Amino acid sequence: MDESYYVRGDGVVRADSIWGILRGLETFVQLLVPMSNGLLLTRRTEIYDQPRFKYRGLMLDSARHFVSKAKILQLIEGMAYNKLNVFHWHMTDDSAFPYVSSVFPELSAKGAYRPELTYSKADVLEVVKFARMRGVRVVPEFDTPAHTASWGASHPEIMTKCAGKFEGQIGPLNPTKESTFDFLYKLFSEIKTLFPDKYLHLGVDEVDSACWESNADIQDYLKAHGLDNGDLPYRYLERYSANISAMGWLQMVWQEAMIENSYMEWPKGTIAQVWFDYKKTMATLTKKGHDVIMSDGWYLYVLDTGADWEKLYNVEPTDFNGNKAQKAHVIGGEACLWSEWINEHNVLPTTFPRVSAIAERLWSPVEELSVDEARLRLEEHNCRLMARGIEARPANGFGLC
Amino acid sequence: MDESYYVRGDGVVRADSIWGILRGLETFVQLLVPMSNGLLLTRRTEIYDQPRFKYRGLMLDSARHFVSKAKILQLIEGMAYNKLNVFHWHMTDDSAFPYVSSVFPELSAKGAYRPELTYSKADVLEVVKFARMRGVRVVPEFDTPAHTASWGASHPEIMTKCAGKFEGQIGPLNPTKESTFDFLYKLFSEIKTLFPDKYLHLGVDEVDSACWESNADIQDYLKAHGLDNGDLPYRYLERYSANISAMGWLQMVWQEAMIENSYMEWPKGTIAQVWFDYKKTMATLTKKGHDVIMSDGWYLYVLDTGADWEKLYNVEPTDFNGNKAQKAHVIGGEACLWSEWINEHNVLPTTFPRVSAIAERLWSPVEELSVDEARLRLEEHNCRLMARGIEARPANGFGLC
Repeated sequence: MDESYYVRGDGVVRADSIWGILRGLETFVQLLVPMSNGLLLTRRTEIYDQPRFKYRGLMLDSARHFVSKAKILQLIEGMAYNKLNVFHWHMTDDSAFPYVSSVFPELSAKGAYRPELTYSKADVLEVVKFARMRGVRVVPEFDTPAHTASWGASHPEIMTKCAGKFEGQIGPLNPTKESTFDFLYKLFSEIKTLFPDKYLHLGVDEVDSACWESNADIQDYLKAHGLDNGDLPYRYLERYSANISAMGWLQMVWQEAMIENSYMEWPKGTIAQVWFDYKKTMATLTKKGHDVIMSDGWYLYVLDTGADWEKLYNVEPTDFNGNKAQKAHVIGGEACLWSEWINEHNVLPTTFPRVSAIAERLWSPVEELSVDEARLRLEEHNCRLMARGIEARPANGFGLC
Repeated sequence: MDESYYVRGDGVVRADSIWGILRGLETFVQLLVPMSNGLLLTRRTEIYDQPRFKYRGLMLDSARHFVSKAKILQLIEGMAYNKLNVFHWHMTDDSAFPYVSSVFPELSAKGAYRPELTYSKADVLEVVKFARMRGVRVVPEFDTPAHTASWGASHPEIMTKCAGKFEGQIGPLNPTKESTFDFLYKLFSEIKTLFPDKYLHLGVDEVDSACWESNADIQDYLKAHGLDNGDLPYRYLERYSANISAMGWLQMVWQEAMIENSYMEWPKGTIAQVWFDYKKTMATLTKKGHDVIMSDGWYLYVLDTGADWEKLYNVEPTDFNGNKAQKAHVIGGEACLWSEWINEHNVLPTTFPRVSAIAERLWSPVEELSVDEARLRLEEHNCRLMARGIEARPANGFGLC
């Protein structure tokens, strides 16, 4: 995505790509100053601009609490106003499977909270198209092998039955059964038809091997194949990742997938999403030549009284020990709307204008970033967001709008 | 307000007052359990109930950020679902004067953010009626003598021009001019026609005397009357309060008005609203026989990640050193929506379901209050609020609804 553009106040927008034109038009809109007589003036200016990072994302977890399509479209609209370019849709999790699949309709029939709290194929296609028209990619994530309890509601056969002290619990997808991978292949073949983006986010976070290790069938399998418990996550990843690659997808994963499976040979272009312990994680992964994006410190459910955008603004993705080549592997960052504490009713004011602070950090040259200089700019921008229909909360504790 | 009632699961609601009937009906609605066939069943039960405190309020600051009438009605609807019974409307402040007065239309013409960010008389009457139909009183506050910069935009003659190191600033209403009290008399005579409640909240918080003391005319006045700087707040209060009493209003004030004017003879029934240092303040004021309500710890703009309703729930208004008679002077409490960080878009999910925790604390016997026992009850109640159209945020980090 080449997003560079040139804008002049008298109405010239030039770029080498449609994405650059979109960003330039957004800037042009922001140059407009409303006059008291109802006319709009533009500022006399000339701007050559391009983003510092190519990946500037917002993730929504639509599983823990459902968020309606209408609110998702508003989120994406607001992303475009902030020149964010990737909507990462964390579709499923332990608590719910809201996507209505054609090949496996029982996944949502039994795994969604309620029939009306689901996304049809038409909904997904509408979101993807709406985003594309605004220069926003949509990267889906159907997190596996953990965070899949909702899958087990209709497909217990792909899950792991825990034993011993975990007796009665259901664990991650079973990596020792061919049928697990057949199932995934069918499901993701369908998903592939809906999401045109090159990337799929595999998830692979917080995989606890304890349940796998407690299962007698899995232990038999390991013995028969000369493997041990330590091979289980790799056994899953290797097969699953190969399938996804075969379908033509590039891959993203949460950081653990790379850190804990250091011998895994990741397909070229695989991106790790860093969400904790970022200084160490970034240093480690970029040293190995992996591309990374930053999410540590950008979990939007973390709340604080007052102007907490300042804290978000001050998170710098390249702030770790590493050489120039390593820093170049930081390709961007992503704000995350994990929805334990977020639902339909607070998703927009939780996001806006706080995400604007992250968006500026990801777009602008690092030497131009200053909380004090950003304060009034953010206030003005927030007024603009609200005037354009975004349900944003106050930015600064004073009421310019 | 006698709010006691009797409810039986088979559909009997009895009370000695219309308010009790309203509370009983609310409880009856909460006894309904939806069945999968669409029918509603009631639980087989019998309830004698009455509130622990007679004053259970929610304050909205509609000055720092404007909140539309539509959202105010939803706030009040949600208050009724939580058996809260006083909507305290902090109408004006330094930043804005959104009420459109007939006698002084210039107050909002020059003191509101924008013409469309105002409340007409018809708006106020609609809010008051809407609230009354739900058993919610509306107590207005047009805060004086401080927090009045927005008044000064059209009526600089009632303000104090600061001098010396405050030169160029405008201070509190001028307590030495008859015209100030004439102005107030005319304005509050109009306000009285809109708000039928017995109480007016005078405000009188955060009065900084420094500007008064810097003004030469005020100093001359003090000399001429044999007064000194310390008499200024009292000089204001005495006159203003007498006028308000003469209009037939009982009075509420923020705690400073009583603490700092300990020689003032307050009309019988005056209530102090406690908002900081509550253990000491409550002990002092109740010892003198004043009625008090609790707001310390219940400022809803204070945010924390996660289930922060628990902190609100654990604030106990009677938790101070005092005898039984003193405790009896605690007549309730009030959650406060100061709107530095609150606007149209986040006011409802900031309030609900967090205010439910405060509502239960104020309604139920103290020995029945337990965070652990309240958790699931609040979750269920929050689902009920949302099903009834209240834009509430998640309560507990898990997604029952």
